[in-house]
Parts: sequence; C-alpha cells; structure tokens
Amino acid sequence: MNVTPDWIALDWDSNSLCAWAMAEGRALAKAHSSDEIDGSTRDGFELALTAVLDGWQVSQQTPVIACGLLGSSGGWIDVPRHAVPCPPLAQGPVPAPSAHFNLHVVAGLRQTTPSDIMHGEETRIAGFLALNPEWDGVICLPGAHTKWAQISAGEVVSFQTYMSGTLASLLAAHSVLRPSVASEDWDQGTFDTTVEEALSKPEKLAARLFTLHADQLLDDAPVEVGRARLTGLLIGAELAAARPYWLGTNIAIIGTDAAAAPYVRALQTQGAPATVANAEPMTLAGLNAAYRRWKDENTPSA
Amino acid sequence: MNVTPDWIALDWDSNSLCAWAMAEGRALAKAHSSDEIDGSTRDGFELALTAVLDGWQVSQQTPVIACGLLGSSGGWIDVPRHAVPCPPLAQGPVPAPSAHFNLHVVAGLRQTTPSDIMHGEETRIAGFLALNPEWDGVICLPGAHTKWAQISAGEVVSFQTYMSGTLASLLAAHSVLRPSVASEDWDQGTFDTTVEEALSKPEKLAARLFTLHADQLLDDAPVEVGRARLTGLLIGAELAAARPYWLGTNIAIIGTDAAAAPYVRALQTQGAPATVANAEPMTLAGLNAAYRRWKDENTPSA
Repeated sequence: MNVTPDWIALDWDSNSLCAWAMAEGRALAKAHSSDEIDGSTRDGFELALTAVLDGWQVSQQTPVIACGLLGSSGGWIDVPRHAVPCPPLAQGPVPAPSAHFNLHVVAGLRQTTPSDIMHGEETRIAGFLALNPEWDGVICLPGAHTKWAQISAGEVVSFQTYMSGTLASLLAAHSVLRPSVASEDWDQGTFDTTVEEALSKPEKLAARLFTLHADQLLDDAPVEVGRARLTGLLIGAELAAARPYWLGTNIAIIGTDAAAAPYVRALQTQGAPATVANAEPMTLAGLNAAYRRWKDENTPSA
Repeated sequence: MNVTPDWIALDWDSNSLCAWAMAEGRALAKAHSSDEIDGSTRDGFELALTAVLDGWQVSQQTPVIACGLLGSSGGWIDVPRHAVPCPPLAQGPVPAPSAHFNLHVVAGLRQTTPSDIMHGEETRIAGFLALNPEWDGVICLPGAHTKWAQISAGEVVSFQTYMSGTLASLLAAHSVLRPSVASEDWDQGTFDTTVEEALSKPEKLAARLFTLHADQLLDDAPVEVGRARLTGLLIGAELAAARPYWLGTNIAIIGTDAAAAPYVRALQTQGAPATVANAEPMTLAGLNAAYRRWKDENTPSA
C-alpha cells in the first residue's frame, strides 16, 4: 500500500510511540513501537521515529505534529508548559530541532498549587472539546497517573494527578499481594462494596491492602475477589479525594474501555453517570486541532 | 572461638535468617545469612540452616527455637496460627520435622475481622512483655508490613497491618518518583508539615504523591525534601487510620532506630510520646521465653 500522508500525527509517551499517517483529517495508516527507545541522545529519537515511519512517503517537509512526554525534560525538546487556567492548546505546536523531520510539539500544562504537570492529556482534552464544543464539566483520564481536569468555557481551570494506577501495578507485580490478585477478571459485587468501603474510610488504604493477603491465606479468597478489592480500594480512595471535582457536574472519561470501566462503575455506585470517550480518536482530534493551528500560523495571509 | 550453645535462637523471615548461639539466657555468638534461600524444598531450608550454624558446636539434640515466616505456608512447617485475643505466645513452640535439627517453631497469630496475620512480631511482643510485665498499651512494629498491636493484661487484643513500608520502597525503586526521593536523609521540617497535611487529608495520598514529581520538575525540589514528603505522606496517612489504636494510651515502638525514628517523630508532632525498644533484644527475649516454655513442657516433673 502506498501511504502518502499530508502530515503525521504522533503520540509519544515514556514507553510507547504511536504514529498516524494523516490526510484530509483522517488516518490512512497507523504504526507503533513499544521497544524501549534510547532517548538519551537526539539521535536515539530520530532513529526510533525513522523506524516507525518506515514504508510511508514522508519527506523532510512533511509536518509531524506530536504530543506526550517527547515534549518534556528528558524528551526530544523541553517545551515550556502553559500554566492553568488556559485552553488545553494554549498556543500552536512548538518547532523542535531535527535533522530529518519537520517536527512540532504540543506544550504540556502545569499548575502551581498544588504543583502538577501533564503531557499528552491536554491534547486528548483538546480533541474532546473540538468534538464537544461548549462542554463544561470534569474530564477523567485514567492511566498509571490518572488525571482529573476541571473544564469551563473551553479552558482547563485546574487538574489533579493520582498515582492509583502506578500503585495498583506495583503492588500486583512486586508485593506480597501478587498471588492474591493474579487475575484479569474481577468480581463485580466485591468491587462495588469495596468502593463503598474505601469511600467511607479512604485513610485505611494501606491497612485494607494487607487484608487481601490475609484473606487469601486464611480463607483461600479467589483471585477475582483479590483483584476487585485492589482496584476498588484504590479507585474508591481516589473518588473520595476527587469528590470536589466530580460531584454534581458532567463527567467524561477519556481512556481505553478497560481503563475506563472501573471508573464508570465506581462513579455509577455513587449515582454519578459518566460518558466514555475512547482515547485514540480524542488524541487524533486533538493533534488535528494542533495541526490546523500550525497551518493557520504558517500560511501567509492573502 | 569454641561456641557451644545450650540452644539456638532463630529469626527466619522471607529473605533473612538470623541465628544466635544461646547459653544461660545470653547470646554467645550471632550469625546470619541474607542469601536468597531455596525454600521450595525442605532440603533447601536444612542446607541454609546448616550453613548459618557452621562453626558452632551444635548436635542433632541441641534445641533450635525459631520464629518468623519459617512457620507459615511456604515456610518449613505451616504451624496453625492462634486467634486473637490471646497471649503472644499462646502455647509452646511446635516441633517441626527435620533430618538434622531438633527444631521447634513459634506459632503466628491471626485475626478474623478485619482479617490479618503476623509471623515473628508475636515473638518480639512476647519479649517486650517479658521485660515489661503488666505493660498495657499499643505496640507498633515498623517494617515493610508495619503492625500495630493492642495489648491488655498480657494478651494481644487486636492488631492491624499497614503496607506503608512496602508502598514507600516500591515507589522509591520503581516509579516516576525515584529521582525525587533518592536520598537517605530527610528534611525534618518538611516531614513535620507533611505528617500534619496527611493526617488532615489522608484520602489525598495518591494525589499528593505525584506532587513530589511535579515539585522536582517545576521547582527543582531537593531529594531530602522529596524523601521527607514520601515518608511523611505514608506515615501521616497510617497515623490517621491507626488513631483509635494510639490515641490516649501507652505507645511502644519495636524496631531498629532507623525504622522507629519517623514514627517517633510523627507521633511526637501529635503530642503522643512513644518509647522505643530495639528489635533484636526483644526477639531474643521472646525466643528465650519460648525456649523456657518448651523446656518446662519437656522436662519430666519430679
């Protein structure tokens, strides 16, 4: 297949690189790499990107519009972050030095009190707002570092990052809980009661976690129950802390179905319905908005 | 040196094995191994113990009195745990099958609601109570799995395990926080204010953790501050949850100086003074009590 894109959309996170060949606002093709990328030198980034784009008709002039950790310290270029409150795309993408690519990177966001940063989520939020203009409410972006962002009049007013996803994966991989939660499936009833339990006593997290281990040793608790309790304890505590964000407002969750599901369910138990938007189309819509912005800024007016 | 013990005291945890050559209630010598032990077979345990006792005059009749995970499922022998409330040494040590040793193992404790288990801490508690008869209050035993035990009239009334130590070490080793907390030293003032912050909003743990990363990126926060915040957030949240245990009662902490120090300090900021008892002498006093119990039970009465 001959893939000749107008431009390249790029989502580059700490350990994954995803590229789309774009023409007329649509993706002609998609390519990705999950190899660990040697980003210690600029050459490492150039080589990784060259490998991912291999086979597409890309010239040194083809615009490449990127979001993610690529645009942070330790990334390809350290793009200054915009301070909230501001629109998710506060300016056009910033040109990055490159020997082979016409690369432009979307700036991340920062917040002073409490201190916080985001890289990549601002683009998904921009995509969601491009597809849902006039939308106000709170957007949750689940992941290793789940973000909650308060949106009003097209701006990110404030945001907050929770390390719940990191805690879940570290405990499941490296702690005494490993055998108690070794399941992809989770028991729904246990999840619901655990979310309630965590919402009413969120401070008990570190103690409740150990009960998963004790339950398995003393009562031979099934792994689906253990997995449901691990996820329920962490998301319940997160909802307790994020309550000022989600209570009594529109809630959208941007993520994969698997990442969104426990949040949707947990919010449901609290009588708070959430809409789910799949992450990939939001990323593409956001990068598309950034591309149009770049084009407007780089087209001489008549 | 010719070491001829009356009996051997043994503390065998998941990844460390410590032995003392005992005579007349005193330790003549100490030996330990931190090699990973192949406990998948009984032979693995026998070999590891033989290696540690090498050089001492130990016969197949020399009593070996042990505590720790050795006496749990996956250990040398799965000794049934005693249900609290009960004395920390609810019975004499239980004989364990061995080709080469006269081995006896102290039983762990269990609790039904909330479900919990301990292996080894009951021996340190028994040692503390042997040295401090009539003592009532709460005993905290810091570690990867910190235990809080409520003691009354010589019994463990209830206990609770917190995974705060595990969370701290996993986050410091395997998360985005690693460079922000890469310090053995910690800033005392930051620790004090962080404990206060965590005690007043313990549910914010997963969000506050991410601020360590943001603070380093945005403000170049020193690692001593990051380490103080990590420890302060986890211990503050733990104190919030354990408040019914420690409020208005005697508090003793059994641990190494390094493990006890942040707990002592955090409790101090709450106007709750704690005494510290070093772990090793408590373990020895507890195993000594278990040995006397074994001797009484195995000496024919006149």
